[in-house]
Amino acid sequence: MAYHLLQRDHEGAQRLASSLDYALQHIRHCEKCNNFTEEVVCELCRSHHRDAALLCVVEMPADLLMMEQAHCYKGMYFVLMGRLSPLDGIGPREIHLDRLLKRTQDGLVKEVVLATNFTVEGEATAHYIGELLHDKGLKITRIARGLPVGGELEHVDSGTLAQAVIERREM
Amino acid sequence: MAYHLLQRDHEGAQRLASSLDYALQHIRHCEKCNNFTEEVVCELCRSHHRDAALLCVVEMPADLLMMEQAHCYKGMYFVLMGRLSPLDGIGPREIHLDRLLKRTQDGLVKEVVLATNFTVEGEATAHYIGELLHDKGLKITRIARGLPVGGELEHVDSGTLAQAVIERREM
Repeated sequence: MAYHLLQRDHEGAQRLASSLDYALQHIRHCEKCNNFTEEVVCELCRSHHRDAALLCVVEMPADLLMMEQAHCYKGMYFVLMGRLSPLDGIGPREIHLDRLLKRTQDGLVKEVVLATNFTVEGEATAHYIGELLHDKGLKITRIARGLPVGGELEHVDSGTLAQAVIERREM
Repeated sequence: MAYHLLQRDHEGAQRLASSLDYALQHIRHCEKCNNFTEEVVCELCRSHHRDAALLCVVEMPADLLMMEQAHCYKGMYFVLMGRLSPLDGIGPREIHLDRLLKRTQDGLVKEVVLATNFTVEGEATAHYIGELLHDKGLKITRIARGLPVGGELEHVDSGTLAQAVIERREM
């Protein structure tokens, strides 16, 4: 890409440089959800069409996009911009858990939906946040683990099948 | 395989023929779980180390094997040997639901775990059995749907993510 821009597309390189410059100057973190935005509070957090009683915690902005594309959730978000990973030096401060704690105490939030990944770090992060918010009078939920939609027993890994059986639900 | 046996391995063909012959004559369906067995009641159904209060309903013998390999379940089974599929002429009689109903009425079974696949037919079958056993005083559960173990929000299909959010559980 660098060779192409330098050899054949000086104008494009200039546009890219000024776009990056503009982004670096104008894009910041939303004061409420911590996602990237050009404003103090992002459009999603300002919306009156969303349920302020629900707060979904995701790791990255891409996860928020996935949630929105699934059209299954109409509440608010908090983006950690990472996950707990002590070996990489990422602790509770780096993923802004102090701000998350403050965010849940606005009197409107009733339920915190933990939607971190089902990786080791994601699970540890969910567990830590669960403990942190444990006695704050909030309902703490975790998105479900189990077989995917369209999934067949014969083709899932045994760890997932075991979880699906352990977390079976009454019909 | 046919060419190989006829041209190079007459003895093997003979062994295969008599094995098939033996299987056709001796293998039948277990009277309790409907799985293949050489006895009237299979070894698993005769075991005293399993929980007779749990009955797991699966579509095929391969699904039972998967459940056993996952080491997550220590109850009994019922193998439907298929799933409801009206277009293929497979109705409640073909998947032995009369026998399943009788099996659940032995006084020991307290919970029926529906572990059919999450395909359209598997879901319809689970729903049908749920309705069938609805007022029989049993607990009816369905294995969980959601994100697989190790799963990341960014890499699952939106249908599965939507289900995982809808079926979130309290921590």
